[in-house]
Amino acid sequence: MKSAIRVTAVALLLSAAGCLESEPLGVPVRGRMHDGDELVQFSLLSALAAGDYAGGAPLQQLLQFGDFGVGTFDRLDGEMIVLDGDIFQVKADGTVVPRDGAGATPFATVTFFEADGQLDGIAASSLTELDHQLDRRVPNAKRPVAFKVTGEFAELTLRSAPPQKPPYRPLAEVIDQQQVWTRQNVRGTLIGVRCPAWMGTLNVAGYHWHFLSDDRTIGGHVLDCRVEGARGAYDECSSLLVRLPDSKSFDAADVSSVSDADVEKIERQRGKEDAH
Amino acid sequence: MKSAIRVTAVALLLSAAGCLESEPLGVPVRGRMHDGDELVQFSLLSALAAGDYAGGAPLQQLLQFGDFGVGTFDRLDGEMIVLDGDIFQVKADGTVVPRDGAGATPFATVTFFEADGQLDGIAASSLTELDHQLDRRVPNAKRPVAFKVTGEFAELTLRSAPPQKPPYRPLAEVIDQQQVWTRQNVRGTLIGVRCPAWMGTLNVAGYHWHFLSDDRTIGGHVLDCRVEGARGAYDECSSLLVRLPDSKSFDAADVSSVSDADVEKIERQRGKEDAH
Repeated sequence: MKSAIRVTAVALLLSAAGCLESEPLGVPVRGRMHDGDELVQFSLLSALAAGDYAGGAPLQQLLQFGDFGVGTFDRLDGEMIVLDGDIFQVKADGTVVPRDGAGATPFATVTFFEADGQLDGIAASSLTELDHQLDRRVPNAKRPVAFKVTGEFAELTLRSAPPQKPPYRPLAEVIDQQQVWTRQNVRGTLIGVRCPAWMGTLNVAGYHWHFLSDDRTIGGHVLDCRVEGARGAYDECSSLLVRLPDSKSFDAADVSSVSDADVEKIERQRGKEDAH
Repeated sequence: MKSAIRVTAVALLLSAAGCLESEPLGVPVRGRMHDGDELVQFSLLSALAAGDYAGGAPLQQLLQFGDFGVGTFDRLDGEMIVLDGDIFQVKADGTVVPRDGAGATPFATVTFFEADGQLDGIAASSLTELDHQLDRRVPNAKRPVAFKVTGEFAELTLRSAPPQKPPYRPLAEVIDQQQVWTRQNVRGTLIGVRCPAWMGTLNVAGYHWHFLSDDRTIGGHVLDCRVEGARGAYDECSSLLVRLPDSKSFDAADVSSVSDADVEKIERQRGKEDAH
């Protein structure tokens, strides 16, 4: 972990040539650069599930690893949407707040979205049906894939969660505090990540969907949706980068305790609906 | 996966400034660079275990991701050692061959070794005892750690495997073809990687050791050793990068079939000894 003190001729050259960003993540090593086709996740789902909600990676850093993705915020304060390089926070009361680089994320998954293919005529009467349709149309089950689906949604079931206070309880317990609401006839975008089964409990195996309306007033973690005539695009990733938190709480977290049943509950359970 | 066609102003700037290597891995994205503190693995252990032995990442590319590590070669042709930026191949007959950048690896794990701490007075009557000692002295169980242990080894039990021919059989089957030999009183270096349990079957959970003698004539995958007064160093990694093969054989591999028992057999089983 001493990369910060590695200073090479390449670094000096890059620095002198103005090639480095004003706030580089680290001193460059042998001039090798990220190729942008990575799915990048901050921390492990199993650590979040164990209650490691505090702090995490600076949001400013997150944007250096992707312009598209999903996640949550410090203390589990709402759902994160990263779209076109902008970060939005959906609070438990449904409010959508644009975020700048201040703040941190204990868990997020991003990539630089570069479409590998287009998807037209998407119609699904449920989120499960959408998942199955995308499984058929983008069959590669070995690589992480990012999905963007835009259209007029006849119905959406969304959720978010309120911020937690220490001592933090496991996610499968606090998820009962989630707020769930439905909205009809909303134009917007589904932001999705499909993780291959081999990723196990590093992330959410299968699909993970968040939503943001075109007018940036409605969003959240998607539990269900109904849509016709939507259009989409997908980006297959060739690598997975897992960035581990540099914190005592992460080192102490019991990341072995999360079960598939917990993940199902955390990510897909449809809670008690309340129309607000 | 279209990063190759991403051409940004940053790329042009870097290119004009001569900041890119002669054979870059990809066009740079927003000037963000790898920080060198990643454990980088090519493919998945589960894919290798399923028999995905053909081709893989070019060795030249491997060296852009690390100067230290372990792996194997195209067609499972021997054990790979990467030490101080040089690649060595230990054939099934025990021969050690220096390799240049030609050739490929279906599975390898590397990092740029930057010591985070030193380890003096290492003594162990078995490899298992060494593992336990390092568990105590470098207790962080959440991050991948690279280990380098140098000394005079009273005894070493080494193995390597012969190249395979298609159709490839699973690794747990072909490992019976491994050749095992012992050597006494050899000066050299253990090259080790310790993967945290959360990495599951992405890699070898726990320790994975290869050896190379100072005179570069003896090496292999280490099944057992005895040593006193050895010295070592370790490098804790803050990230894991998994690079997936771009091949039909990888896409087709059943990566869900490897079991912990298979991994134990593949990595740690002491086969029939034959002194050659």
